[in-house]
Amino acid sequence: MPARPVQRPFYYRRPIRWGDTDAAGIVFTAHYFDICMEAIESWFLDTLELDWFAMMHDCGLGSPFVHAEVDFHAPLTPRDVLLVRVDVERQGNSSLSLLLSGVREHDDRRTFTGHFTCCFNELASFTKIPIPDELRHRIDNYQRRCAE
Amino acid sequence: MPARPVQRPFYYRRPIRWGDTDAAGIVFTAHYFDICMEAIESWFLDTLELDWFAMMHDCGLGSPFVHAEVDFHAPLTPRDVLLVRVDVERQGNSSLSLLLSGVREHDDRRTFTGHFTCCFNELASFTKIPIPDELRHRIDNYQRRCAE
Amino acid sequence: MPARPVQRPFYYRRPIRWGDTDAAGIVFTAHYFDICMEAIESWFLDTLELDWFAMMHDCGLGSPFVHAEVDFHAPLTPRDVLLVRVDVERQGNSSLSLLLSGVREHDDRRTFTGHFTCCFNELASFTKIPIPDELRHRIDNYQRRCAE
Amino acid sequence: MPARPVQRPFYYRRPIRWGDTDAAGIVFTAHYFDICMEAIESWFLDTLELDWFAMMHDCGLGSPFVHAEVDFHAPLTPRDVLLVRVDVERQGNSSLSLLLSGVREHDDRRTFTGHFTCCFNELASFTKIPIPDELRHRIDNYQRRCAE
Repeated sequence: MPARPVQRPFYYRRPIRWGDTDAAGIVFTAHYFDICMEAIESWFLDTLELDWFAMMHDCGLGSPFVHAEVDFHAPLTPRDVLLVRVDVERQGNSSLSLLLSGVREHDDRRTFTGHFTCCFNELASFTKIPIPDELRHRIDNYQRRCAE
Repeated sequence: MPARPVQRPFYYRRPIRWGDTDAAGIVFTAHYFDICMEAIESWFLDTLELDWFAMMHDCGLGSPFVHAEVDFHAPLTPRDVLLVRVDVERQGNSSLSLLLSGVREHDDRRTFTGHFTCCFNELASFTKIPIPDELRHRIDNYQRRCAE
Repeated sequence: MPARPVQRPFYYRRPIRWGDTDAAGIVFTAHYFDICMEAIESWFLDTLELDWFAMMHDCGLGSPFVHAEVDFHAPLTPRDVLLVRVDVERQGNSSLSLLLSGVREHDDRRTFTGHFTCCFNELASFTKIPIPDELRHRIDNYQRRCAE
Repeated sequence: MPARPVQRPFYYRRPIRWGDTDAAGIVFTAHYFDICMEAIESWFLDTLELDWFAMMHDCGLGSPFVHAEVDFHAPLTPRDVLLVRVDVERQGNSSLSLLLSGVREHDDRRTFTGHFTCCFNELASFTKIPIPDELRHRIDNYQRRCAE
């Protein structure tokens, strides 16, 4: 696979929409997790060149989440544009822990902090597997570049 | 308000549906948070007799979540019926922390554990308010009955 | 399979929740389709004894929707309880068209009318198959009982 | 408001995501309506410079949908990129009917056709109002440019 310039760190840019809101006029608690999953899927695809859907279909592998957590600092409303930065917190044998930092684009205000851990496994047996070597190198590479 | 027999502890019963799944054939990570919010809203309504929508409309008060967290122990698929038990973890001045324990109905297997904290506030100013006294007594009452 | 008393017609009962709303304080347009899919899945399961997930896993068959349509008559808010009646509009060779009628439980007011058509197929090839005979009989049976 | 070059016709570009799928590995029926609402909201904002959230807050006006309909021609999976073209079908006194045409970006295959009608109203009374003149002119303008 040819080398690609890596965006460092990765930011997922996400306009807040009408459909994200609830009757209080702010983004509904559960919808933050949809947005975080979008951010993580985009990071996997753009930074690690790993496509969840292809991984499942072609290799029978999955990376289900074993932990998902968000602290909410400030509400979001439609027309806010959210930027979600993705950092690697810890790479284990099978597991990968990510730190998600959400800020509002126009004033840089922190809106949430998230911690998400997924665990690589064989989907058929739901048994853990080590993170594949090539993927591990790309994760290491991303962490190194973010730390520079 | 007349006394009502309190179900103790409160369980939210929720059949898993096709629309909860993702391409791996199991409940999608983010959807657990929708389900947990359903469970918490039901607990507020049935146990505390607190209706979020009425509280917002009639009193201008809200209870936005400041923390939401789930550990996933075992996957769920459609036709599993999920039971979510709601316990009070801690009652602060303005904040209320709940423990959610999800088990599969047919074999009692633990599927997830959740921790959710909301904080009572005035919606217009988004400033904290103390938990109203009558509500605090109902929460105390629920905790005491659960502990019996 | 032993005969089972059939509820006739089938009603899906669904309390409206906080998470169904948008910033206008009413159920968000797109969420009606989630609710209709819940109603249809429940009708298939309870009335036809057909489990979408099992049908997919055990037989490699699916019933993807080729048409979905809702006319909205009156808004819904949390604490409204919605009743969705499911009727068979037309049974084709491969396709099944359903009429969904949504009313508010407390005052019987019509809130929406939906038309949904699914088409039975082999999932691998995505080619149409005739509706299986046993299923066809159950659908006929349901229609007859509703007409009585 | 200064004149802005108008993109003509408007296309909403939307990568399909893992979270859009169901256990059949394709986009879940109800999620098409979320995607269509995203497309329509983007069209209102980018082409008509109308912000639903601001319209509600600043003017107490809304444009709830009275009809939503999709015909599904071909399934979508993650990594498909969907393009949704928005056309004006009919402008009434209070109502606006839109035609949504979904194609896959990489092969131009039609995936769905949608018809959506919203109706402008005062939110407090839920009574119809005429489409505001400035908005009507922008809609006319968009139609004319699309027809050129």
